[in-house]
Amino acid sequence: MPSDKSNSIKIYNSLTGKKEPFKTITKGYVGMYVCGPTVYSNVHLGNLRTFISFDTIYRYLNHIGMKIRYVRNITDVGHMVEDSTEDRISEKARVEKIAPMEVVQKYTNDFHDTLKKFNLIPPSIEPTAQGHLIEQIELIKNMMDKKLAYEKNGSVYFDVMEYNKSNEYGILSRRNVEDLIHNTRKLDGQSDKKNPQDFALWKKAEPQHIMKWQSPWSLGFPGWHLECTAMSSKYLGEQFDIHGGGMDLKFPHHECEIAQANACFNTSPANYWMHANMLTLNGSKMSKSTGNSILPNEIISGDNKMLSKEFSPSVIRFFMMQAHYRSILDLSNDALLASEKGYHKLMDAVENLENLDTSSKTDFDVKGWVNNCYDAMNDDFNTPILIAKIFDVVKFINLVKAEKAEINKNDLKQVKTKLNEFVFDVLGLDKIKSNTSDDKIKSVVEILIELRDKARNDKDFELSDKIRDDLKNAGIILNDNNGKTDFTIN
Amino acid sequence: MPSDKSNSIKIYNSLTGKKEPFKTITKGYVGMYVCGPTVYSNVHLGNLRTFISFDTIYRYLNHIGMKIRYVRNITDVGHMVEDSTEDRISEKARVEKIAPMEVVQKYTNDFHDTLKKFNLIPPSIEPTAQGHLIEQIELIKNMMDKKLAYEKNGSVYFDVMEYNKSNEYGILSRRNVEDLIHNTRKLDGQSDKKNPQDFALWKKAEPQHIMKWQSPWSLGFPGWHLECTAMSSKYLGEQFDIHGGGMDLKFPHHECEIAQANACFNTSPANYWMHANMLTLNGSKMSKSTGNSILPNEIISGDNKMLSKEFSPSVIRFFMMQAHYRSILDLSNDALLASEKGYHKLMDAVENLENLDTSSKTDFDVKGWVNNCYDAMNDDFNTPILIAKIFDVVKFINLVKAEKAEINKNDLKQVKTKLNEFVFDVLGLDKIKSNTSDDKIKSVVEILIELRDKARNDKDFELSDKIRDDLKNAGIILNDNNGKTDFTIN
Repeated sequence: MPSDKSNSIKIYNSLTGKKEPFKTITKGYVGMYVCGPTVYSNVHLGNLRTFISFDTIYRYLNHIGMKIRYVRNITDVGHMVEDSTEDRISEKARVEKIAPMEVVQKYTNDFHDTLKKFNLIPPSIEPTAQGHLIEQIELIKNMMDKKLAYEKNGSVYFDVMEYNKSNEYGILSRRNVEDLIHNTRKLDGQSDKKNPQDFALWKKAEPQHIMKWQSPWSLGFPGWHLECTAMSSKYLGEQFDIHGGGMDLKFPHHECEIAQANACFNTSPANYWMHANMLTLNGSKMSKSTGNSILPNEIISGDNKMLSKEFSPSVIRFFMMQAHYRSILDLSNDALLASEKGYHKLMDAVENLENLDTSSKTDFDVKGWVNNCYDAMNDDFNTPILIAKIFDVVKFINLVKAEKAEINKNDLKQVKTKLNEFVFDVLGLDKIKSNTSDDKIKSVVEILIELRDKARNDKDFELSDKIRDDLKNAGIILNDNNGKTDFTIN
Repeated sequence: MPSDKSNSIKIYNSLTGKKEPFKTITKGYVGMYVCGPTVYSNVHLGNLRTFISFDTIYRYLNHIGMKIRYVRNITDVGHMVEDSTEDRISEKARVEKIAPMEVVQKYTNDFHDTLKKFNLIPPSIEPTAQGHLIEQIELIKNMMDKKLAYEKNGSVYFDVMEYNKSNEYGILSRRNVEDLIHNTRKLDGQSDKKNPQDFALWKKAEPQHIMKWQSPWSLGFPGWHLECTAMSSKYLGEQFDIHGGGMDLKFPHHECEIAQANACFNTSPANYWMHANMLTLNGSKMSKSTGNSILPNEIISGDNKMLSKEFSPSVIRFFMMQAHYRSILDLSNDALLASEKGYHKLMDAVENLENLDTSSKTDFDVKGWVNNCYDAMNDDFNTPILIAKIFDVVKFINLVKAEKAEINKNDLKQVKTKLNEFVFDVLGLDKIKSNTSDDKIKSVVEILIELRDKARNDKDFELSDKIRDDLKNAGIILNDNNGKTDFTIN
């Protein structure tokens, strides 16, 4: 693990709009917070892309020897349905006729199961919003004491205009408060707010609302933005290194987090803000209502009308890694087929590497290649460049295999080590043997069929019968059909 | 699903010490709460047995068509180390030099992974103690208002003597308060308590303690017993059907839960208390300090010094099902080997059932057999009796296969349906093919090795070399050693 690599990482910081050298608060240690899912439905493919992107970043930072505390939350309360006063989980509970916490459990399980299939490493801490209500209430008291939040009819709101007097609301999304007021006034019907851009820190619950807790202001529930401030500050400190999430969270969610942290702790929470871009499907935004939508499990099972076949989680992950996390990525049948081909080519090379013959010299700049790989990842975690570099060595491996190039023992060892590290540890791909057990059985049985054909030609029926009977005892039945033999496995 | 079966279930109720007809509060619905793990270490084999026992009960109630809300908690705060004032999770965090919530995450992940291997169905709701602090604080206020709890130096205790004036502390464990006082006084050094048998509802945290929250009494943390009262009442109501857990939780944990519920809601929480018995290892209690201890994963991997080989989760589960949940179960190498044999015999019968020939009559009382199976489970979920009944039909299936008995088409269908339901849906066993792909490859390669040996004896080196080369191309390398040939699969 070349720990000096950590000195040359550059990260595109959404807060400044620039690629900056990555300097951590404590040398060698990284605190990273990523906004997790709201567990009211099966995990969305676009969200999955975001989590895979940050998993790869987590893996790379680990690989170069940094110590990371990676916090990714579960939102199990407070995320409101757009244009409504209903919590997303409460709404789903009403529709599915189960308790809100049963909704939470069902979709938390789905989230974990899906991420496991895609080989994501669990975060160091996975806190829930409901598990941090006292912390959220304490933050609200803090902001009220500073007159940056006000109570109205049992609900508490963040006072954006007041905050903006000494801070800059809109710093991340580069929005102007005056414009925001102008743009949002018409849509807003919540008259409890002093200004339409104010956002809820605590909401008084309607009497029929199940998810509600005692607070100094009312029986209610916290606002969505507050949980991340409570949990990131609790587990990473008031100021930490990286805050990540999907592009759609930049405004208002992350903007509000910055405002809350400045209000509570007089500091911007994260030094580096990272945003993963959108995933589109066949050139258009995914949307359930238009039908242009597909779930991760539907791609894996092939149970969908969009794709010609099923694709393994590793192929899907490889496909995602072929785009940079800050680029829009379009998923289509052709793109997945191409990725599948590339993925198998890569896996074949990894396997071929195990049986290469060595010689006294090497026709490849191994040291330069290793540096290129690190440079790619150090440049804002550029996985498509890394993959291009990986295919340079794949090409070389194939030349050596075809005896058109040479490699010496030490270099072979180095290529093996680094290729495996980048492919499995960093990109998080799964090894599938291109030749599975079933393929192997097939190959071996074919050898026996050939021997049996020869025995039959030689009229050695003792041998041909023996082969058939031995195979039958092993559970493999030969079927002779018009001079050709195939077989079935019981 | 014969829903009338739900009318004849009897449950041994630890509260009354009697087997009683199972009457649910709402017909057709069951509320079940089971005390989950404290996530400060890898899940213990004894605890696993408890969770498998209640999983089987959950599966059976589901099978007969009841609607169950099954709540199993995660204790992530408040469970104290014996004879100390340190929380188990805090202690582990200190030892492992990570944050308490990293301890929680690590062992929650281990718990979920292990339970998945053993085919447990996730509960409907899996709440955490940290996720219900406000609820716990509200219960404490309730008990203080009733003078059944008192504050001292920032901590709050339940007043057992006061409670005992109008209630019966010790009702579950059949202990007498006077005896308890006599037995515990010497050991107790916590002078804040009025009486030694009083238990903590809230503990003021030491300054260095990380896990602490704001409350009306101090910056502190809740007592261990309180979380279960908070979560069971929240998700199942103040009174519900079944409360389960390991025998070791009967006192003081469940006794305290009963006292808290009576104090808060004027009702005993559960109508049926069920306790799963201990698991011993080679005749003695498991204990890390004496070395008489083994983890579930060590049995599966074979990485241990106690057992002669590895055992699959299904074999271990089958072994556990062969004892009644209220009996002590002793795990040993011989016992596991015997279970493995029985398990394979059962799986062979399930497989043979698919290829049985039918005739016009049946030499077996299928209807009576089905009833016997239900009777076994209705009798306090007696899985060993169920397994004995299942082996009656296994014996019969083997007779039919050997053409020594007959079965007609309808009865075969019924046996298939019910055997599969009991084995897979109720007992929760996994189907493994008795002959795996690897076994098959081995058998087929052995045929080729035999042919090659013959070719070499016949001096037909062309053939023997061809077999070796063909196998190599299929990824199978032959190794000749002192006249014997084995092989490795790449």
